[in-house]
Amino acid sequence: MKKYAVIVAGGSGKRMGTAIPKQFLLLDGKPILMHTLLSFFSADKNISLVVVLPEAHISTWQSLCEAYNFTIPHQVVEGGIERFFSVKKGLNSITEKHAIVAIHDGVRPFVSAQTIMNSFSQTETLKATTLAVDLKDSIRLVGEGGNSKAVDRSLYKLIQTPQTFSIELIKKAYRQEYSSVFTDDASVVEGIGEKIHLIKGEYNNIKITTPEDLVIGEAILSSL
Amino acid sequence: MKKYAVIVAGGSGKRMGTAIPKQFLLLDGKPILMHTLLSFFSADKNISLVVVLPEAHISTWQSLCEAYNFTIPHQVVEGGIERFFSVKKGLNSITEKHAIVAIHDGVRPFVSAQTIMNSFSQTETLKATTLAVDLKDSIRLVGEGGNSKAVDRSLYKLIQTPQTFSIELIKKAYRQEYSSVFTDDASVVEGIGEKIHLIKGEYNNIKITTPEDLVIGEAILSSL
Repeated sequence: MKKYAVIVAGGSGKRMGTAIPKQFLLLDGKPILMHTLLSFFSADKNISLVVVLPEAHISTWQSLCEAYNFTIPHQVVEGGIERFFSVKKGLNSITEKHAIVAIHDGVRPFVSAQTIMNSFSQTETLKATTLAVDLKDSIRLVGEGGNSKAVDRSLYKLIQTPQTFSIELIKKAYRQEYSSVFTDDASVVEGIGEKIHLIKGEYNNIKITTPEDLVIGEAILSSL
Repeated sequence: MKKYAVIVAGGSGKRMGTAIPKQFLLLDGKPILMHTLLSFFSADKNISLVVVLPEAHISTWQSLCEAYNFTIPHQVVEGGIERFFSVKKGLNSITEKHAIVAIHDGVRPFVSAQTIMNSFSQTETLKATTLAVDLKDSIRLVGEGGNSKAVDRSLYKLIQTPQTFSIELIKKAYRQEYSSVFTDDASVVEGIGEKIHLIKGEYNNIKITTPEDLVIGEAILSSL
């Protein structure tokens, strides 16, 4: 079946404390977003790549592509005011009726080819999958007045992207009205009563959101 | 008040896939456990260090200390069959009646001096504190038959060590009978109905439990 990847790169870099949006920060001398696109392109050249960027960053991205001679084919779509609307716009750019679409964070450059291909192939039958890994640290549930209580971490999974769906299913889910409980695509799909299947993620598939992550990212890159 | 750190280094290295217990693996050419002890010693030379090791690893540790000319003063205590019993033995080696004790994972070498000192000073008034950081990834609660549902990650905190207590309080908590719900020291203290105060942790304060973590650890070390 036809494969798409919608790469959402909407972050403004607030948490990173830099003026440059985090997806454009350099990792081993190249913007993070290029690494992410290359991960999908290297996994399978037949994956159609859709990059969703805030309007304000599109010209910067185009300049970067020229400057870095980045020629991996991809379509650029202007994002919305919330991640929900950005993903929706990305999905609306896809006209194919039967396809699998992986929705992925632009700042998760280290997802492996094996994990990408596994996401697509498992989703052919499961329709809605998301990467998940076990928690390594204990977690506590925080209540009012700073109270907190231990919860059994084995009952929880940390969620990563890609979150991968049949195009019919994910488009149907994104026709719902926006709600602030939609923190990722899985929760949007859950909003129409569909089941999410958890598949094996990988600890290296980190989201680069803080300066510490950038240091860690350089190390992961050099170890691959 | 007198300060103690009980460093628990009981891991057998199963998750790491190595024959060497993970606390003895080299980080920048030196066993991880030595880095951890140095973090406390550098923060304040007056912190009395207690290292709890499985009986089978004590002679290895002593050989390593000689080989690496590691002269930071510390007491070695033989551990028990579960983390609970190891911590209890470490605590029982402390005879001081009024003291603050930080209980820390041997494989968390990157805790900063500032965070260590903050743990001790806050615990003087709060009696029971643990480091906590926000989750960066979404989490899902996993139920029967592979079902899972999105939960609000802002209601949860990832828990780190040191977990720091007044010695009276923590010794009282460890006089309880062992239960498998005791996954960390905070949960043991909670078992006697005492409140745990969450204080600011740090993302660099990772627990080295997988080969990926070791790569990340080298990067963190070189960035400090």
